[in-house]
Amino acid sequence: MLKVNGKRLLTELEQLARIGRTAEGGVSRPAFSAADLEARAWFRRRVQAAGLQFRQDGAGNLSALLPAESEGARTLLVGSHLDSVPNGGRYDGALGVLAALEVLRTVAEAGLPLPVHLEAVSFTDEEGAVLGLLGSQAAAGQLTQEELDRSRGGGEALATGLEKLSLSRSSLLAAGRDPAALLAFVELHIEQGRRLEGSGTDIGVVDSIVGIRSHWLRFRGVAAHAGTMPMAQRQDALWGAAEFVRRAGDRVQNEFHPGVVNCGRISIEPGAFNIVPAEVQLGLEYRHGSNDQLDGMETALLHLAGECAQEFDLGFEAVEAERRAPAPMAESVMTAIEAAADKLALSHSRLMSFAAHDAQAMSSLVPSAMLFVPSVEGISHNPHERSADRDVINGADTLLHTLLELASRQNG
Amino acid sequence: MLKVNGKRLLTELEQLARIGRTAEGGVSRPAFSAADLEARAWFRRRVQAAGLQFRQDGAGNLSALLPAESEGARTLLVGSHLDSVPNGGRYDGALGVLAALEVLRTVAEAGLPLPVHLEAVSFTDEEGAVLGLLGSQAAAGQLTQEELDRSRGGGEALATGLEKLSLSRSSLLAAGRDPAALLAFVELHIEQGRRLEGSGTDIGVVDSIVGIRSHWLRFRGVAAHAGTMPMAQRQDALWGAAEFVRRAGDRVQNEFHPGVVNCGRISIEPGAFNIVPAEVQLGLEYRHGSNDQLDGMETALLHLAGECAQEFDLGFEAVEAERRAPAPMAESVMTAIEAAADKLALSHSRLMSFAAHDAQAMSSLVPSAMLFVPSVEGISHNPHERSADRDVINGADTLLHTLLELASRQNG
Repeated sequence: MLKVNGKRLLTELEQLARIGRTAEGGVSRPAFSAADLEARAWFRRRVQAAGLQFRQDGAGNLSALLPAESEGARTLLVGSHLDSVPNGGRYDGALGVLAALEVLRTVAEAGLPLPVHLEAVSFTDEEGAVLGLLGSQAAAGQLTQEELDRSRGGGEALATGLEKLSLSRSSLLAAGRDPAALLAFVELHIEQGRRLEGSGTDIGVVDSIVGIRSHWLRFRGVAAHAGTMPMAQRQDALWGAAEFVRRAGDRVQNEFHPGVVNCGRISIEPGAFNIVPAEVQLGLEYRHGSNDQLDGMETALLHLAGECAQEFDLGFEAVEAERRAPAPMAESVMTAIEAAADKLALSHSRLMSFAAHDAQAMSSLVPSAMLFVPSVEGISHNPHERSADRDVINGADTLLHTLLELASRQNG
Repeated sequence: MLKVNGKRLLTELEQLARIGRTAEGGVSRPAFSAADLEARAWFRRRVQAAGLQFRQDGAGNLSALLPAESEGARTLLVGSHLDSVPNGGRYDGALGVLAALEVLRTVAEAGLPLPVHLEAVSFTDEEGAVLGLLGSQAAAGQLTQEELDRSRGGGEALATGLEKLSLSRSSLLAAGRDPAALLAFVELHIEQGRRLEGSGTDIGVVDSIVGIRSHWLRFRGVAAHAGTMPMAQRQDALWGAAEFVRRAGDRVQNEFHPGVVNCGRISIEPGAFNIVPAEVQLGLEYRHGSNDQLDGMETALLHLAGECAQEFDLGFEAVEAERRAPAPMAESVMTAIEAAADKLALSHSRLMSFAAHDAQAMSSLVPSAMLFVPSVEGISHNPHERSADRDVINGADTLLHTLLELASRQNG
């Protein structure tokens, strides 16, 4: 059975990890940084050394191309991203790009004639140094001028970044791919969680990428002297907020598993040791792979917040901060991944991705799915991020056979 | 029975309330402000118009003096403060000063020979525009250079303020009174709470002014991706802090009544919607009139915080921020207040003061006590601060007879 060259893949992962390496042994390769540019140049050399075509599109996405015999064939896209968070790990994104390159090389070396073009892609700024999923959103034709204006890195950072890659806002907005020319998108990634490791599963088949909703919750009480106002008569905004924090976590675990909830921001007014809190603002975020479940969570959590406010005689309001729909993965691509894993005698199970990925943007354009390999202790966005060599190679082999399976269905 | 001139007292309260009056009907007379200086000048004119001696000491404390027949007599001090918080009410402090002046005037007009000098005093900066209890601490001989250096208003504000009153740091530090020359200190004040109103009691006899302790509590968890880290595996610092906030309030109400607790400050790290909180810092303050009970609260609350941390697998530490011992009031002065109230057929009960007052500083120097009159709805430090005319006059009459009682004990 055809297999990738695991040793070559591991060597390249090691080489890439030296670009932007940090003192703690992680990597810092935020998009448009010197390290990112160096990684891009390195990737181009690797592609060309493999005898594959190289291309950069209007969004700075880099591709290695292995053409089909027939020029009119559709393209099977496979890849991830080379950029990293600051002081992140060496696998997040990098694994998906290098495994894709290795897969193309393996197919080319085997001289296997395929009825599809193969394209290994690295998307620009997945992690959002300037704008998260920038390259994949551009490829999916989702970007708008308005979204570019709101980029969290700011307009100047965007302009500077684009200039470094000889790109422009207009090239970004024109980078959308034609879906009719595409067959599917497949992304290999590390899990960044502990589910696969915990259950001893080789391959995770992502069935959806979570939707995310967030709100600002405002609990309004009455400022009062923290000495003279009797405890029983206080309208302490922090009591309501604290009660909510505790009950929201329990509620989501009990009723919306495997959904998650987080209160990651909090502020208090007027904020003095000796004044009973008049107002607490809480940043609430929750995630689920199902839009119906997200609706249920929104209803339950906002109702719960209102109840907690009422319990302590507080006013309450919620203001939406962000809303991102879940991205269900394509059944046709998931079954191809499962067929590939079965062929390789690797165990697999379906799971939800709780983090955003390029496949989220791509799924709006073309049938897409992801496969995960186990992360040691679930650690990610951290210098200690690690996946076992065996899992890295299993992932690449499964990716290879997923593409062969999808290609063979074209033949059939 | 001798009574104060209630109408005159109410008229003066009204006149004083015009000095520093705010748009909302409150008063802004922070120490050393133009309004404070105007109120000081107005008070001096009222003292002199009453035929009493006027004096300003090295701390800017203003006094009206009604000498005893014998020059070697001791002095019975009575008073409060003329300064206010920004946009505060017209009774806090002002009532105690004007009632003291009215009492001296009443005694003088009655031609009553007393075996003690009477002194109606207004202490400088009780509210802490520059340094809380500045004047009374100076009179009590408690001030140190170090404390002046730490003044929360800053060194420049202190210097500017002192200059306006033709004072200096050295005059402040030399303003300590000779306790041998003093008989007692009595302060009439509004309750700033709802206990008297709630129980329909005319006069509150303060048996102690609360001690205050405060700490920074640090709950330490582990930052994690708010999507990929499963709920059951999180070490969320906010969960521990929230659990503590809720249980601390209940604990103090159940076990340390009438002590109070407040969490008035909170901060969170790293503070992002999508990151599980790694550290929460909580500002904890609690108050009680008994030092033993404060010790008990400290043990119970810090133990509880440790328990809440442990429950969520968090690290925990507490750092003391402030420690102010309770000031028990003098039994001899309390019984004099009670005898006076009985004589006037006014109901009374003992209670704790949950706020700081000049009597707190003075109690370290001389036997001291306070009497409270009801505050409508407990509102204070607020333009809507109010006490009924009847309660204002009851308070002044009780103050008058308290002084007569203390003076008569000198005779006996």
